[in-house]
Amino acid sequence: MPSNSGSRSPESMQLDLYSVGKYTPGAPLWKQLLWYFLGSPMTESRLLPFSAMKVQLLRSFGAQIGTGVRIKPGVRIKFPWRLTLGDYVWLGENAWIDNVAQISIESHVCISQQVYLCTGNHDWSKSEFSLITAPIHIETGSWLAARSCVGPGVTVGRGAVLTLGSVATQSLEPMKIYSGNPAVLIKVRVEIPFKAQPGVK
Amino acid sequence: MPSNSGSRSPESMQLDLYSVGKYTPGAPLWKQLLWYFLGSPMTESRLLPFSAMKVQLLRSFGAQIGTGVRIKPGVRIKFPWRLTLGDYVWLGENAWIDNVAQISIESHVCISQQVYLCTGNHDWSKSEFSLITAPIHIETGSWLAARSCVGPGVTVGRGAVLTLGSVATQSLEPMKIYSGNPAVLIKVRVEIPFKAQPGVK
Amino acid sequence: MPSNSGSRSPESMQLDLYSVGKYTPGAPLWKQLLWYFLGSPMTESRLLPFSAMKVQLLRSFGAQIGTGVRIKPGVRIKFPWRLTLGDYVWLGENAWIDNVAQISIESHVCISQQVYLCTGNHDWSKSEFSLITAPIHIETGSWLAARSCVGPGVTVGRGAVLTLGSVATQSLEPMKIYSGNPAVLIKVRVEIPFKAQPGVK
Repeated sequence: MPSNSGSRSPESMQLDLYSVGKYTPGAPLWKQLLWYFLGSPMTESRLLPFSAMKVQLLRSFGAQIGTGVRIKPGVRIKFPWRLTLGDYVWLGENAWIDNVAQISIESHVCISQQVYLCTGNHDWSKSEFSLITAPIHIETGSWLAARSCVGPGVTVGRGAVLTLGSVATQSLEPMKIYSGNPAVLIKVRVEIPFKAQPGVK
Repeated sequence: MPSNSGSRSPESMQLDLYSVGKYTPGAPLWKQLLWYFLGSPMTESRLLPFSAMKVQLLRSFGAQIGTGVRIKPGVRIKFPWRLTLGDYVWLGENAWIDNVAQISIESHVCISQQVYLCTGNHDWSKSEFSLITAPIHIETGSWLAARSCVGPGVTVGRGAVLTLGSVATQSLEPMKIYSGNPAVLIKVRVEIPFKAQPGVK
Repeated sequence: MPSNSGSRSPESMQLDLYSVGKYTPGAPLWKQLLWYFLGSPMTESRLLPFSAMKVQLLRSFGAQIGTGVRIKPGVRIKFPWRLTLGDYVWLGENAWIDNVAQISIESHVCISQQVYLCTGNHDWSKSEFSLITAPIHIETGSWLAARSCVGPGVTVGRGAVLTLGSVATQSLEPMKIYSGNPAVLIKVRVEIPFKAQPGVK
């Protein structure tokens, strides 16, 4: 038996053996530190309520961001270089984009207040509790309502809705509404097109 | 087809068409800015743990507040002019009163830590994703436990309890206890009156 | 009838009668204030990402902490003198240890981001809404995933897992995985030992 077995669990994980596996942060250390100490406090600041400067800042750190994007105060982004936002994306107050893996958000998506997007996981079947990361993909026209939460590897389908406080660890199908923890399908989303005209669908 | 159709969803919302509908913030811009940049940081501050100054501040911005109210540090209030608190109301640490619509809390109510009260919604059936707001009414003697969450339009009945981390998007009946996400009725609340005396019920 | 009965609920709690019962904070007032105004802001600071100084600080306020402990930024601890951490414990970003009662975390435990550990409760069957506190005990090798929540009096058994955003108000059995709100058993955890060798289990 190992000498410090008293503090170890014989059958479950041992964090002194922890391994990040193949994971890399995707940017040199100086860039990570610069983002952490200077950039991130700016996107999180309540004193910068307007979006333009924050969008420029994120782009300068490698984020790909379209037009018409609104970033509310208190938004926390782990790694801008692993973030893609389309056009007219909203990031609500205190949303937390925890993108150790890539997070891609297509156009016309609303991420409401306090949403948490989690891309990190651990292999609980291994004593070394290896880090597992998986991207999140959020398709056009979807809405993650306030305080909802999305787990690693999830795809939120086109036009899907996740309701207030719901938790999704499985992918959401297009044009469907999910609710609860765990989130389950509760309704189909049907939209009335804006000023529908002939030839414009 | 419109020229930027590539970034638009044909069937779901288009945030460049976003409309706040009939919504108004209920105060002139200068007052909103003054609250956002000066008032709100004070109610949120960890350096002002005592309630008296915060109660006065909220009243000066239009909140109606009774006696014996306790406001813990980290409380965020969107619009004081849309807030009514009775007597002996407690707002716990980091509670978030997101009152774009009126929030009325009657007397002897405990709002615990990290509770989120959400009065904003969106019409997901419309491409313009119109803002819909609805008031929250919390009746006497009820308790929203830590990290619980209440949605737009909900009435929390007299003496109702919402347990730790629960999410209520439907109204709660008086003297009943709700739990889970979605919150479901789990128990009837029965109270033993304090020092019951003849003639005092 | 009492004169201010208009603001009182006849059948449910009356917060002007509130009682903390037998509860005591476990430290003199000067120590509580020193922790609140000087110590706690340091463990919560985003400017102190490294653990060593925070571990020393917590020990100087009475916490019992082993070796190899990692404390991420944004961690909030109510009372260090009611905290015991074994070896190789991780406290994730913005975890909130609300230990009005004792919280004991054994070795090789991962408490992820935004986890909330709640030791305070109220007696909703009494008009005076008495404070009830109960300790939390988290055994070796367990994992509370991001944004999960554990209630008063809970024991998290050896090697148990509580998944993303789940809420546990009941104790969790060893080597089992719980999910949802309320958290329910979803799976048994089986671990492959690290470099299993003859004679080492």
